[in-house]
Formats: sequence, structure tokens, C-alpha cells
Amino acid sequence: NKVYKIAAIPGDGIGIEVLPEGLKVLQAAADKHQIALEITQFDWASCDYYLEHGTMLPDNWFEVLKNFDAIYFGAVGWPDKVPDHISLWGSLLQFRRRFDQYVNLRPVRLLPGVPCPLAGREPGDIDFYVVRENTEGEYTSVGGRMFEGTEREFVLQESVFTRHGSDRILKYAFEMANNRDKKKITVATKSNGVAVSMPYWDERAEAMAAQYPEVAMDKQHIDILCARFVLQPNRFDVVVASNLFGDILSDLGPACTGTIGLAASANLNPERNFPSLFEPVHGSAPDIFGKNIANPIAMIWSGAMMLEFLGEQDERAQTAAADIMQAIEKLLLSGPKTPDMGGSASTQEVGSTIAQYL
Amino acid sequence: NKVYKIAAIPGDGIGIEVLPEGLKVLQAAADKHQIALEITQFDWASCDYYLEHGTMLPDNWFEVLKNFDAIYFGAVGWPDKVPDHISLWGSLLQFRRRFDQYVNLRPVRLLPGVPCPLAGREPGDIDFYVVRENTEGEYTSVGGRMFEGTEREFVLQESVFTRHGSDRILKYAFEMANNRDKKKITVATKSNGVAVSMPYWDERAEAMAAQYPEVAMDKQHIDILCARFVLQPNRFDVVVASNLFGDILSDLGPACTGTIGLAASANLNPERNFPSLFEPVHGSAPDIFGKNIANPIAMIWSGAMMLEFLGEQDERAQTAAADIMQAIEKLLLSGPKTPDMGGSASTQEVGSTIAQYL
Ligand SMILES: CC(C)[C@H](C(=O)O)[C@@H](O)C(=O)O
Ligand SMILES: CC(C)[C@H](C(=O)O)[C@@H](O)C(=O)O
Repeated sequence: NKVYKIAAIPGDGIGIEVLPEGLKVLQAAADKHQIALEITQFDWASCDYYLEHGTMLPDNWFEVLKNFDAIYFGAVGWPDKVPDHISLWGSLLQFRRRFDQYVNLRPVRLLPGVPCPLAGREPGDIDFYVVRENTEGEYTSVGGRMFEGTEREFVLQESVFTRHGSDRILKYAFEMANNRDKKKITVATKSNGVAVSMPYWDERAEAMAAQYPEVAMDKQHIDILCARFVLQPNRFDVVVASNLFGDILSDLGPACTGTIGLAASANLNPERNFPSLFEPVHGSAPDIFGKNIANPIAMIWSGAMMLEFLGEQDERAQTAAADIMQAIEKLLLSGPKTPDMGGSASTQEVGSTIAQYL
Repeated sequence: NKVYKIAAIPGDGIGIEVLPEGLKVLQAAADKHQIALEITQFDWASCDYYLEHGTMLPDNWFEVLKNFDAIYFGAVGWPDKVPDHISLWGSLLQFRRRFDQYVNLRPVRLLPGVPCPLAGREPGDIDFYVVRENTEGEYTSVGGRMFEGTEREFVLQESVFTRHGSDRILKYAFEMANNRDKKKITVATKSNGVAVSMPYWDERAEAMAAQYPEVAMDKQHIDILCARFVLQPNRFDVVVASNLFGDILSDLGPACTGTIGLAASANLNPERNFPSLFEPVHGSAPDIFGKNIANPIAMIWSGAMMLEFLGEQDERAQTAAADIMQAIEKLLLSGPKTPDMGGSASTQEVGSTIAQYL
């Protein structure tokens, strides 16, 4: 019987508040289905750790974390303490790159009991995935400044698209689309404006499409694609995008389903050479930290994604993940809810109730 | 009495259908207010021109067009005839750069009579401007490919942010915010991910903000900003963004107000050293070309923006622009409407009715 080794990292802000609820629910699901979890908690990857040690992570972070099966991550960032580009590039973005978590998988789903900001949409209408490239593309610190401090000053910023990086994310997304009923893929692009990298991305997408004759591919420019998330969210199945475009689409999608505070995500290394990382899409939200009103559902949903991924070959973990999703849906219909959803429950009440529904 | 010299360029697809309606309404407004217009039409900047001549524009296009007060532009692009990167970079993007139309101004407004895809929003709730940088940033063809054709292949794509380019668009937007009641500006960024250009953009925004102490600045990452266009569209006043982010926001905004087919835009050279260009946001829409069902309102609204800009010092042109907007609103309430808005009127019927309402 496999023991799943999980590194739990709360990080900053409401990450600290929601992680315990995630663990509570995970443990309840594991107990029910006799799954063995071994949880180790770390205080790294937080701005407080940085203020004390001058780095976001200890020197041996890679060696320590690489032995875990997964990282269960709260949120990082507290701009008043440490600038984002230090806290994020020093932790989360390191994990994604060094552990080659090249797939950022984000479900967009209209759930029952959640008010939808779009008019006339019902649960079931919206149900798709954003598959985001997670290691390269527009997210780089390559480039620099010239004529600094003068009127002629300018900055060059590189985007980097490798064939290796483009092909593997496209392959993942096409595989996924191919295994689903609709067999539809939408490729986000902007080849009419961003004139070097995006035509290349298109070219790789077309080469991949040729290998999946049953999957219908639709290339859409990011501007009109964002518009269609609002106007026709029901027409999507799998949406694949570069790092930046995926970042945008995977916030916009949950906004369209009213679940920006509920949205879960998985940062996957599909080959399982390194641990994958599971985290809520919402950030550390310093403005509501300490009030005990943070909604733990995104954290809990991320836990379900973790069990699903870990247990690919393990029926029990699959069932446990499905159970958690059912318990979340039950809570969304019958409460109690945190203030962001119109209720007055605390973070803990919501976590405990979901654990109990299991 | 000034004569306004206007170059009318239909371009491709429904550009050819909507431009005459725009001109019809412009002429009606001009007649009513005794404004002298001199319209010259060109068949350049179309894919048909390209197929015949091998270029999108004749050699002397710059010399010819620079003597006009404004360019009234339909739409360009017909991917089945000419790839977008040729047709667009060879025409529209040339105009924007060579005529230094560095401001792309796009109103986002919930109009009466237009069904809003967001639940519970009323006309008047949403009314703001996207001010988009229009000449540099992420839109470049600078970069290239290495290890071509091999597994190691990769592409570098430069974004270029100059102080000159950043400061002038920020200044335009801060001036605009300063002249409005709310005095609020939202600066789109992604400095936590796009780690060279966006921190620079933030830095220039902060420097500009220091010169406008009465304007409240809010910097928002593009991912959450897109989400807020859906969730809290009422909170915006002036949104300033780089070329790519502005492109995204100015499609998303109109989508949120149900006006993607109605949205107008101005490509401005505020110093009036060169002609400015006015065009609908919708493209050439080859799929509906020839059916005579294209909605001409975006073209007509762009004409109103043109009169407003041309007539900054000319009361009559200002009034004519306001009249056109009123006539559009009247039509939106009482019809007739094109099929995209649930009606069955033709492009011409809508154009003629608006002209008549004047
Ligand atoms: C057609 C395309 C190049 C253009 C752009 O991205 O600028 C269009 O989307 C626009 O917004 O005017
Ligand atoms: C915090 C930030 C760097 C991050 C990103 O842009 O990747 C976040 O927005 C996300 O989507 O995980």
C-alpha cells in the first residue's frame, strides 16, 4: 500500500488560513478510503521566511522537496513586506521551473449554488479546462535596459518559445482533448500582432494537430478569445495557451463562472520525474488575512486534483477525489458559506463541514 | 470655414459594406451642421489590392495620406487570400506606426437597448475608456529562430518599451483621468511574471502618477484585471495599457457590454502632426461578407469619434458628433436592427435610419 508523501507549504496571507482546511479534508478523505498520507509542513516560501533569512527558500530546497510525491501549496506574496518579483520568482516560479511542472491545469466549471456573473447560464453550461504552458514563453527575466536614466531609455524583454516547451504542452492538451467526448481544442494565439513567437506557436500547433486528426482545432487570437469567454463560454472544451495567455484565461474563466475564489489549479510534471504542485488560483489576499473569512474551497478543490493526479493507478485515490468534489458541491448548495459567497461562516466552519460531508 | 479632408479606406470584407453607411451618416451630420467634408476613397489596404499588386499599399502611400486630416477605415484582413501578418503589418499596423498614432482610444459603454451578457447591469453602470499604447510594446517583429528544424529549435521574441513611448501614453491617460469626474486610473501590468518590461512600465507609471496628485492610480495585473472587467466593470474610469494588454482589454470590455459588434475606436496622433485613423473594433468578418447583414454601428460611432477629434476647436463638429451618438442610441431603442442584435434589417437600412434620425 503506497504512502503518499506530501509537502505542505502554507506560504503567506490567507494561504496560512486555508491550508489547514485543505489538509483537514484531505485527511478525512484518506481515512475514509484507507489511503496513507505522510504530510510534512514547511515554513519556507513565505515573505516572513524571507524577512528572517534573506531568501525565500533554504539552499537545499530542491534536494528536500524532490523526494515528495506532491507539494500542496497555499499562496505566496505580501507586497508590503517583499516585492512580488522577489517573493514569486524566489519560490513558486522556481518550483514550476526546477520541477519542470510544465502543465498548469485549471478547470473552469459553473458549479451549482454559485451565482454566475453571466446572464442566463446554468450549471453544466460551462465546463472546460485551460491548459497553460508553465515554464517559459513570456515569463522571463531575460532582457535589459539601455540609455538608462535618459530620454532615450528603453527596455528589451525577451519571450522564449522552445520547440521542446511548445510541443510538450500542445501534446498534453491534444491528448486531453482526444480523450474527451467533444474532441475540441482551442489554441490561443496572437500571431497577427506578436509577430515572431506567435506565428511559431501556430506552426507548432498545426504540426501537432496533424497528429490528432480526430481533434477539431480552432486557433483564436487572445483578444477575441477573451471576449468569447464572456459571450460563448459553453463552446469551449480544452483551451491551450502560452504562459501569459494561459494566466489571463485561467483568471478570466473562473471570473465568468463566479468562482474566482473557488478555482483550483494543478502544476503538473506529467512524467512524474519531480513532484507536482497543487494550489488555489486566488493569491495570498493580504487585505482579508487574519479575519478568518477566507474561502477554503479552492484549496480543498486543489487537494482533490492532487489525489486524482497521485492516484492515476489507484482506484481508492480516484474515489476519494470524487468524494471531495461531491462534498464541495453539497456545501455550495446547502452552506455554510464564507462572506465572499454571501454567508457568514468562518474558514474553519466551511472546512469542517466539507470534511463532515465526506 | 475649415474643410476636413478625409481619406476613406474600406479595406476588406464587411469593411466594404459598413464604410458607405458611415459616410452616409457623416455626410448627413455635416450637412445639418454646415461642416465641409472632402472625402477621397482609396482601394488600397485590401487583400484584393495585394493580390493584384503584390503589396498592400502603393509606394507613395505615406506622401498621399499625410495630407489628410483623418483616415476613416473599414477593416483589413482576409486570411484565405493573404495571411494576416502580411495584410495587417502591411497596412493598419503601418499606419499606426508611421503616422505615430500612439493612442488607441476605445470607449466601453453599456448602451440602452443592448442586451448585456453580464447579469444585472443597467445602462449607465458601465462607462469607461481603454487607452491603449499603439506603436510599440509587445507588437514587434524583432527576434528570430535558432537551431531551425531541429529538436533544439527555439524562438526569441522581443518586446520593446521605450521611455518616450511609455511616458507619452501614460501622460495622455493621466491627463484624461484628471479631466474626468472620478479622477481614477487603472494601470494594467504583469510585473510579477513578465519580469523586465513590466517592472519598467510600473516604474514609469509611478513617475507619472507623482505629477498627477489628484488622480488615484490603481495598478492591476492583467489576469485579475480581466476578471474584474467581468465582476466589477462599474469600478473603472480610465484604463491604460500596453499594446497587447490594451488589445485584450478593448475586446473584453465591449464583450462585457454586449457591444463587440458596435465598438468604435480611434487611433490618435494627439499632436496632429499626422492624420489620425478611426475604425470599428470588429474586423473584416469574411464569414458574413456579402450577406448585407453587417452591423454598421461601430463604423458610424467611429465617425462620431472622428468628428469629435477633428473638431476639438470647432463647436459645430462637436455638436454633430453628439448628434450621431444620439441617433445611434435612438436606433438601439427603436430599431431597425441587424441580425446580430436580433433584428432582420440590412446594413443599409440601419445606416439610412440613423442618417434619417439626424
Ligand atoms: C488585427 C490586429 C492586428 C489588431 C490588433 O491587435 O491591434 C486588432 O485586433 C485591433 O485591436 O485593432
Ligand atoms: C502570482 C503570479 C506570478 C502567478 C502567475 O502569473 O503565474 C499567478 O497569477 C498564477 O496564475 O499562478
